[in-house]
Amino acid sequence: MPTRILLQIDSDQHPSSFDSVVAIDAGVEQILRYGDVNADNIVPLVHGAMFTRGGDNLKHTAIFIGGSNVQQAEELMRAAESSFFGPVRVSLMLDANGCNTTAAAAVVAASRHLNLTGCQALVLGGTGPVGRRVAQLLASDGANVTLTSRSLERSREACEEISTKLENNPSLAALATTDQTSTLAALKAAEVVIACGAAGIELASEQDLRSNAALKVAIDLNAVPPAGIGGIGITDKAIEFGNGVAYGAIGVGGLKMKIHRASITSLFESNDRLLDAAEIYTLAKTIG
Amino acid sequence: MPTRILLQIDSDQHPSSFDSVVAIDAGVEQILRYGDVNADNIVPLVHGAMFTRGGDNLKHTAIFIGGSNVQQAEELMRAAESSFFGPVRVSLMLDANGCNTTAAAAVVAASRHLNLTGCQALVLGGTGPVGRRVAQLLASDGANVTLTSRSLERSREACEEISTKLENNPSLAALATTDQTSTLAALKAAEVVIACGAAGIELASEQDLRSNAALKVAIDLNAVPPAGIGGIGITDKAIEFGNGVAYGAIGVGGLKMKIHRASITSLFESNDRLLDAAEIYTLAKTIG
Amino acid sequence: MPTRILLQIDSDQHPSSFDSVVAIDAGVEQILRYGDVNADNIVPLVHGAMFTRGGDNLKHTAIFIGGSNVQQAEELMRAAESSFFGPVRVSLMLDANGCNTTAAAAVVAASRHLNLTGCQALVLGGTGPVGRRVAQLLASDGANVTLTSRSLERSREACEEISTKLENNPSLAALATTDQTSTLAALKAAEVVIACGAAGIELASEQDLRSNAALKVAIDLNAVPPAGIGGIGITDKAIEFGNGVAYGAIGVGGLKMKIHRASITSLFESNDRLLDAAEIYTLAKTIG
Repeated sequence: MPTRILLQIDSDQHPSSFDSVVAIDAGVEQILRYGDVNADNIVPLVHGAMFTRGGDNLKHTAIFIGGSNVQQAEELMRAAESSFFGPVRVSLMLDANGCNTTAAAAVVAASRHLNLTGCQALVLGGTGPVGRRVAQLLASDGANVTLTSRSLERSREACEEISTKLENNPSLAALATTDQTSTLAALKAAEVVIACGAAGIELASEQDLRSNAALKVAIDLNAVPPAGIGGIGITDKAIEFGNGVAYGAIGVGGLKMKIHRASITSLFESNDRLLDAAEIYTLAKTIG
Repeated sequence: MPTRILLQIDSDQHPSSFDSVVAIDAGVEQILRYGDVNADNIVPLVHGAMFTRGGDNLKHTAIFIGGSNVQQAEELMRAAESSFFGPVRVSLMLDANGCNTTAAAAVVAASRHLNLTGCQALVLGGTGPVGRRVAQLLASDGANVTLTSRSLERSREACEEISTKLENNPSLAALATTDQTSTLAALKAAEVVIACGAAGIELASEQDLRSNAALKVAIDLNAVPPAGIGGIGITDKAIEFGNGVAYGAIGVGGLKMKIHRASITSLFESNDRLLDAAEIYTLAKTIG
Repeated sequence: MPTRILLQIDSDQHPSSFDSVVAIDAGVEQILRYGDVNADNIVPLVHGAMFTRGGDNLKHTAIFIGGSNVQQAEELMRAAESSFFGPVRVSLMLDANGCNTTAAAAVVAASRHLNLTGCQALVLGGTGPVGRRVAQLLASDGANVTLTSRSLERSREACEEISTKLENNPSLAALATTDQTSTLAALKAAEVVIACGAAGIELASEQDLRSNAALKVAIDLNAVPPAGIGGIGITDKAIEFGNGVAYGAIGVGGLKMKIHRASITSLFESNDRLLDAAEIYTLAKTIG
């Protein structure tokens, strides 16, 4: 059986050691690690993966695209896909900054506490890469999603972009949360609240969230204090919180790691996997 | 048994993923991959390979020199050789841009269809790294080689350089092919025609080649359309063509890969292998 | 059992191939190699090592800090230590330019020929990274150490810095050796002489050293001619020299390699090893 080879493609100077260790723990035998990759210099790297192993052996080489910058990773993903020649291709996964595995872990964790279909979901600070993915996954399962940011314009743009990725007539509403009043209004009926904002900003206070009678699950994906949702500890994992339960970033971390490893493993099942948010979420549901 | 370690030395920013995958498939267990290597910074890398394993274990470390620029690779090869201290050395292979394995595959493929000794061989666009090597290998086996380019001066320089590498009183003639008339004259008696020109230039038309009654084998090493020889498909492999047969770049690709892998494997048989064009061709003949 | 992963962190452009080969020969299964690392960009690399494996599995990831510049490596070591969160840490080893394993090998070799406790030891050219470490290890075992350089000020600074690392009321004297007279005076009673100066400078002549009746062992760590101590050959290994024996750089090289490999192996015994000069010497004494 040919050696399982992963090309780890990273737009940062140094390819992530985190992603390398996870890949090894997922059974990758040789990692070809590249930093400082951009949409131009990725092409020969992809060709080298495509043209070295024939037939059924092609599936034993795959590509992981990471790095701290999700937008750059998305460009790399497009460039890699464009480098393929029809069926001569290798499996591809995008998880820059852990965006896809983190979003999938959060939504799978939430789904343990209520039926997502038809539920009221609130994505706080939802215009970044993780927030957009969390909203997309929730909406793909039929949740009524409200996506907030400080700017209504940016919230709307995010909702529009997410809609283009969904085929199920998604329920996505944009909202600006500029002060406590607007935040409270947003929280009022929310059964799922997932905070995805930048580090260092409290998006909702503990009191505001505890006062929400409808709350079933609150998840704070911020890993650096102060918490994105007041009162949630980084390691909280299904801890009672108001009328529901709470998770912190490390509280969903174990699940995230399982999803990350399972995704890497699945890359080698055929030569044409393409793992982005939706596909990783589908896989995550079989784990969580 | 010590781990088989290959230093993959590349003058490009990113060490070739192609070369890495082939090395792994040839049984290399650990690859130490280096990009942006030049004749200065290669020295400590070579010393690290030489001074870490003693006695018979030294042969389990070897060096591969690749990259897209063959001239730079040749400089690296010289610098690596100069870094050795007498018997304290490791095996070295040069295959920048696949120049040696491609040339060896083309000439071995040709040799299946006629006896090279004393045959009439034409190397079209022969002044580049692959063309020079193809001409060298043909001449080393006793073919009467005509090497063409648009410039007579450059053709002559190439023939002179090749002569210095051969000890068998080679038959090498330089020719300028500037128009159809000169090309037709060159083709007239050719039994072997191998096109090695830059991508995007047709060096001989299909009609001109088909009109050559002496033709036994035509090989086009250009992998990007348009073909270097009109009418040869990239995947052609011993397909009937005029009075002989034709091969395209991918048509000799399977053989090239076998030669590449076998060359890597042979690096670890002793600590003093030095694999450049002639040595790789010798090995290739035992495979093809 | 999880794969044994070593992060090889190097401040040079290209991570040392020497250190990689030794790590592989010490049982490391996957090396994540990084060049151009500084105190800023090391932090995410360390975090990736810390946050990917839980519990007892954490000890299967470790960090090696190398490179040709010992000062930069010491900065990297401090930055790595500062990146740890309490018990969430991985084992660390510093051996930039082989400074710790070379010093440990030299002192262990010396200890084969006399009892270091209370002996008279002379460290010639002792203000560099290896010299400071040799002096530190000798003093830690109770030797009366004289450390020389051409500048009394630098010798004193080195002695002071070394004292801060020792808890046993060390005996360390600074001396300037500016000519043969001062060198002869320094050599007079020395039982152990270890030359650690820069390449290309003879720190003591053969005659001066042979005239020293007290001499039990002389070690020259300079690997490039001319010798740091006249008359010592690079490969000398416990060769008779005056009233004692002599070792050259390669003469202690075999022991150095054993110490290097054993140190790497010991990194994986727990997740909290911190291997710098003293710890590597302690380990070396169990080998030599």
